[in-house]
Amino acid sequence: MTNAGDVVLVERQGPAAFLTMNRPEERNSLSIEMMRTITEKLDALSNDSDVRVIVLRGAGKAFSSGHNLREMRDKPIEFQTTIFNTCTTMMQKIQQIPQPVVAEVHGVAAAAGCQLVAACDLAIATDTALFLTPGVRIGLFCSTPMVALSRAVGRKRALEMLMLGEAIRADTAVEWGLINRAVPDEDLSSEVSKFVERLAKSSPLTMKIGKQAFYEQLELSQEEAYRAMSETMATNAVTCDAQEGIDAFLVKREPHWQGK
Amino acid sequence: MTNAGDVVLVERQGPAAFLTMNRPEERNSLSIEMMRTITEKLDALSNDSDVRVIVLRGAGKAFSSGHNLREMRDKPIEFQTTIFNTCTTMMQKIQQIPQPVVAEVHGVAAAAGCQLVAACDLAIATDTALFLTPGVRIGLFCSTPMVALSRAVGRKRALEMLMLGEAIRADTAVEWGLINRAVPDEDLSSEVSKFVERLAKSSPLTMKIGKQAFYEQLELSQEEAYRAMSETMATNAVTCDAQEGIDAFLVKREPHWQGK
Amino acid sequence: MTNAGDVVLVERQGPAAFLTMNRPEERNSLSIEMMRTITEKLDALSNDSDVRVIVLRGAGKAFSSGHNLREMRDKPIEFQTTIFNTCTTMMQKIQQIPQPVVAEVHGVAAAAGCQLVAACDLAIATDTALFLTPGVRIGLFCSTPMVALSRAVGRKRALEMLMLGEAIRADTAVEWGLINRAVPDEDLSSEVSKFVERLAKSSPLTMKIGKQAFYEQLELSQEEAYRAMSETMATNAVTCDAQEGIDAFLVKREPHWQGK
Repeated sequence: MTNAGDVVLVERQGPAAFLTMNRPEERNSLSIEMMRTITEKLDALSNDSDVRVIVLRGAGKAFSSGHNLREMRDKPIEFQTTIFNTCTTMMQKIQQIPQPVVAEVHGVAAAAGCQLVAACDLAIATDTALFLTPGVRIGLFCSTPMVALSRAVGRKRALEMLMLGEAIRADTAVEWGLINRAVPDEDLSSEVSKFVERLAKSSPLTMKIGKQAFYEQLELSQEEAYRAMSETMATNAVTCDAQEGIDAFLVKREPHWQGK
Repeated sequence: MTNAGDVVLVERQGPAAFLTMNRPEERNSLSIEMMRTITEKLDALSNDSDVRVIVLRGAGKAFSSGHNLREMRDKPIEFQTTIFNTCTTMMQKIQQIPQPVVAEVHGVAAAAGCQLVAACDLAIATDTALFLTPGVRIGLFCSTPMVALSRAVGRKRALEMLMLGEAIRADTAVEWGLINRAVPDEDLSSEVSKFVERLAKSSPLTMKIGKQAFYEQLELSQEEAYRAMSETMATNAVTCDAQEGIDAFLVKREPHWQGK
Repeated sequence: MTNAGDVVLVERQGPAAFLTMNRPEERNSLSIEMMRTITEKLDALSNDSDVRVIVLRGAGKAFSSGHNLREMRDKPIEFQTTIFNTCTTMMQKIQQIPQPVVAEVHGVAAAAGCQLVAACDLAIATDTALFLTPGVRIGLFCSTPMVALSRAVGRKRALEMLMLGEAIRADTAVEWGLINRAVPDEDLSSEVSKFVERLAKSSPLTMKIGKQAFYEQLELSQEEAYRAMSETMATNAVTCDAQEGIDAFLVKREPHWQGK
């Protein structure tokens, strides 16, 4: 499916597709090439109904160190704008595709790499992983990362990370709600597998409806959200998979999904 | 006030009214009848100035298992829409009435039952209680429950509950801010009584102003919220109860409330 | 710079300015005079490019007990409105000025005093500090404090503080995200100094861009926030300080900031 030297590797394992950022010598920095490739791969996988879960991870010592500083050096504003727009497109793509996207994090997740973790639907990390938004220290405040960060953790915590630029550990990231689990290094793969297995048990149609609805309702007032979600849920309730699921539950048998 | 067989029991204990969902054999599923009855009871109690606090609980082994699946089976979309609109009306009613509503939770609070906990102003549970939004497992994503859930806990945590459909324990629910307290089974009633006692000490007029203002300002930008709340607070400050409260505080005596 | 009897003391220590509320006999209540003076001092300091961090603290036994109740007694609504508008102007000023504002909290932070902690960018407290919004107990619901409080902690937690009016301890305030650190009394100054030192290492221009952007993007939908922050970050990337910071980082030397 992909070659050893590709910027992003794609591997299939059962119901999951693993996207591996593959520039270990650059700590998987988010160059324009890296971001465009991730976006393209996500786009392609989003149309593959056999792929039920997507796992995003990094090759080498780090998850991702964030934007590629060499690429940003001495460049005009038009180029900088291209970088951040490309980045935003990738972050939004993660939330737009129908499948759940799980970040599998080890080593460092810095700046836009930390944003990537915040933007994924779920995140599992080794307990030695570090999360930071250190842009302030090099004169470039992590303003796009903070969109995702401040929506995942509280204000005071986001400002601490952004204004001090220091790393938090994985256990703190769990406490603050930035990630879902911190596990020992040797358990990372098996913990991710457990999540994949559970996520893949559900109807893909239902997961698609739910994920899209989740991000939609977050942006609405509570009243508007209830109105939109009542409609979503009524529509969901008459799908073949909901009626099958309800039937199966009531007679205590396994459901068989058909929706896509 | 109510009969043993009623779908919702209403009992008065001092300043509190206890609403007990009373379909233990159905784990207090939120049938249309159950939701309409809760809404009507809340409406009636909201006009009773002797009722200072409302406690919502469930009879039998569970708080509530969520929507009534038998009722949703093989029904057209118009009927499903009625279910979710009825549900939304009940959830909003909890936040619209002037008195604080406290969820007293034991056993399972699932799907719309979990939403009910999230929608109450305060929630106290036994430490054996379980909270889950398992709709994804039966093909029906918990899209209306997530409106309340995602506004109570963080994004990653809400998505974990919604996408995996697994239960969290009461201590986790406290850590995540979904409930206020988890106590041993035998202490549930006394903990609820403590909350009732404290809540009933305050001026009902002040509580009414404050509760309404709380939900109003949550939906506004910070600047709009400050503008609205400055007006609310100035208006509150000239009420008889605020002037009485300030007087009593300054001369160190107990206040006597008159406002309604 | 200021005299011992002034309502607010201003002291300079290296890159920091310490604002000390100086009405210990009134537990630093937020009288109109106190609020206007804090606002004026913040305004003046915001234009002093040598001041890189502002620390806000209280003289005597308390941080601040909140609004001055004697001032609010028997006053018409026009006067009450002036109080709350003056308060809002101060709270917003904290977030509008370019420098980070750190609350250094000991003793009690009550009502608008608790709001002041919530409104600061960062907050460090002694582990004996107490945080509360007790207005409900004197007939005057803490409606303006809740704007800041409910945006810092979760809904259930905010409602618990607002409806019960009881104090939470500093360790709980850390868990809830209301403050960043709770340290023993004897370590408060040194912990604040550590924060000041780290904050003062960064480019003031970058800090200004980032702080302003932080509060701007919080009010936007995620999509609008990404659009605005991409522009902010591209503009930031071409400033002298970002190019200097990137250069310094890549060749592993200390950066020299020039931007203001």
